[in-house]
Amino acid sequence: MKIKSQDYNKLVLLDNAVSQERVERLRAAMQDAGMAALLVTDNANKYFLTGRVFTGQVYVPLSGEVIYFIRRPLKLEGDGVVYVHKPEQIAETLGLNMPQSLGLELDITAYSTVERLKKVFSGAEIKNASPLLRQVRAVKDDAALELLRMSGKKQVYVYSRIPRLYKEGMSDIELQIEIERASRLEGCLGQFRISGDSMELYMGNVLAGDNSDNPSPYDFAMGGAGMDPSLPVGADGTLIKNGMTVMVDMNGDYTGYMTDMTRIYCVGPVENLPGQVRKAHECSIRIHRELVKMLVPGTEAKALWQRAEEIAREEGLHEYFMGHRQKAGFLGHGVGIEINELPVIAPRSRDIIAAGNTVALEPKFVIPGAGAVGIESTYFVHPDHVENLTPAPEAIIPFD
Amino acid sequence: MKIKSQDYNKLVLLDNAVSQERVERLRAAMQDAGMAALLVTDNANKYFLTGRVFTGQVYVPLSGEVIYFIRRPLKLEGDGVVYVHKPEQIAETLGLNMPQSLGLELDITAYSTVERLKKVFSGAEIKNASPLLRQVRAVKDDAALELLRMSGKKQVYVYSRIPRLYKEGMSDIELQIEIERASRLEGCLGQFRISGDSMELYMGNVLAGDNSDNPSPYDFAMGGAGMDPSLPVGADGTLIKNGMTVMVDMNGDYTGYMTDMTRIYCVGPVENLPGQVRKAHECSIRIHRELVKMLVPGTEAKALWQRAEEIAREEGLHEYFMGHRQKAGFLGHGVGIEINELPVIAPRSRDIIAAGNTVALEPKFVIPGAGAVGIESTYFVHPDHVENLTPAPEAIIPFD
Repeated sequence: MKIKSQDYNKLVLLDNAVSQERVERLRAAMQDAGMAALLVTDNANKYFLTGRVFTGQVYVPLSGEVIYFIRRPLKLEGDGVVYVHKPEQIAETLGLNMPQSLGLELDITAYSTVERLKKVFSGAEIKNASPLLRQVRAVKDDAALELLRMSGKKQVYVYSRIPRLYKEGMSDIELQIEIERASRLEGCLGQFRISGDSMELYMGNVLAGDNSDNPSPYDFAMGGAGMDPSLPVGADGTLIKNGMTVMVDMNGDYTGYMTDMTRIYCVGPVENLPGQVRKAHECSIRIHRELVKMLVPGTEAKALWQRAEEIAREEGLHEYFMGHRQKAGFLGHGVGIEINELPVIAPRSRDIIAAGNTVALEPKFVIPGAGAVGIESTYFVHPDHVENLTPAPEAIIPFD
Repeated sequence: MKIKSQDYNKLVLLDNAVSQERVERLRAAMQDAGMAALLVTDNANKYFLTGRVFTGQVYVPLSGEVIYFIRRPLKLEGDGVVYVHKPEQIAETLGLNMPQSLGLELDITAYSTVERLKKVFSGAEIKNASPLLRQVRAVKDDAALELLRMSGKKQVYVYSRIPRLYKEGMSDIELQIEIERASRLEGCLGQFRISGDSMELYMGNVLAGDNSDNPSPYDFAMGGAGMDPSLPVGADGTLIKNGMTVMVDMNGDYTGYMTDMTRIYCVGPVENLPGQVRKAHECSIRIHRELVKMLVPGTEAKALWQRAEEIAREEGLHEYFMGHRQKAGFLGHGVGIEINELPVIAPRSRDIIAAGNTVALEPKFVIPGAGAVGIESTYFVHPDHVENLTPAPEAIIPFD
């Protein structure tokens, strides 16, 4: 999806019909929220609307022309392109067409930036557009599905090569670095977009043995002590040994739309792993089977959490479900341009599964003394069936 | 700098004296700004104060005990640690000791988060603590210098290996991936912290030939089209050929404190490059020599920009200085926990060079038809001399 040289100066890289359909869905949501206009400043949302990232804002009025206020890069061309050096110049362009109410991404835009924009739109009532944009982006169209499928395909291929990347005597971080390289050579962009800027993670997680039980600063399904206290998450230099599991949960952003996938590896025959490890892994696969049946438009997201927890209890594995020393508060999440999209599969989620949702399910267990088990796959919810975007063997995979 | 297992549960990983001195410098600035208390929520600022990252806030009153409101990870221990699930619980802990005025990081904290905290501290006047924290962090202490030196040393070593990583027929991105791997194996954390969340970049830039003249969405010294419109910056798949330059400007975060360094490489003898390319590279080195003399406490940062521009004009290279089709608005920047710290070396900067500043200078040129030239090095400003944290050969380096 490289920018072709003939398109280099084109602002909107999406197909016209796709771009218009996204704007129309946004406008329907704006209408419901009583929002006369929306000013989009976040990279993920700009990419959603245009198919590229730039510095500037997208102004979407309820009716009338969409205006792209651009600062960088220079020389972009397209309908509605206006170059501005500072947001104050937006007022000059809009003139008397100032909206009565304006949506801004209040959940992610810095306070100072919002205060400055409030002055630019001094007459307008400011409303929070973050929930609305999250809702609209949670439903993926065919153009997004195509990019998701491509990411999934590449991620599955890279994971299939992991047993050959492992060499005896490797540490978790050494294996991770080889997976990073293989991913990048296959086209992984590396960028790991997380909404809100407080969660930090580099290219994903490889967790070996008991390191998976080290609590992380974030609400991640699994922890890891990390290599440095400035980034205390993930691989910590653990030597990979017989009898421990290695969980691989790496970046799947190959196209701007990412998939999310976890598989479990081990040194030596799977039979050498403790029985409880194998049982918990089977339980994760069973939870996938049952939850996929529930990925039907109209289902409450929290029902999926409840069912999964019920199964874990039934099998006597509740103590290890979604972490042991520290537990994650969710077992699945929407994924797309960012890793933490809607719907959220969590006990108190108010989300309802809808057609077009792309959901990563990650029922996982941490078994002290052995490590993390369980798989993660990304599913696309069609009106009448579910498509697995990361289809790959689900059993524990021995390195040799 | 791995967290040692005996320190795993310790909240403050900095030496006590270091931590206290940082808090005292912050308090002196708060006093000047009339701020009765400060609530720190940003990861970079929390790392500055404690030496680790966690989810939660650091509450610094002008006098009295510092309180650490922590949500994750579990089980951290230390004076002043209070576990909370939500910011509203902060009020319960503070009780009657609510401050009259409160500093918040308004330039980076989301609007919704600030509004929520305003309700928690309902009586307090809210002030912007972002400028103050940037000022305090711009002056590095000995503990920070030690980490900066270690990052610089490792970055210099990795750059020395780059000629051996190049193989004939490689594209820019293939070379970048090998440099990423070599950096990671040497301990590079990968995390590239940028204040504000609108600038995105993965592990740095390798720019070959004319790709360096492709405008980027950001105020980066050099551009690049990137591999995908969702991340339109950096390497774009250009095949590395005779007669073009290859600029390497990769992530130098090995310790939580990063250095910033650029060197230029080429295929075949340097003499084969056009004369103007070699002249512009020499000019960059000359600018470094002259600007380092000006890195003296008390100098206006903008004077460095002016002097550099003057030299570029003198040598008839102004058209290519700091970019050609799109120019960067700065030629140097503070660096530390984040890549864009103070002081900023730019035409309208109001910063004054101070002892303890760590400044990356990057006078660069883009020569159409050949590529980018010029070096970047990171300097530490001592009271009476300047220390180059990334000392390495400055000339253009042939791959063979």
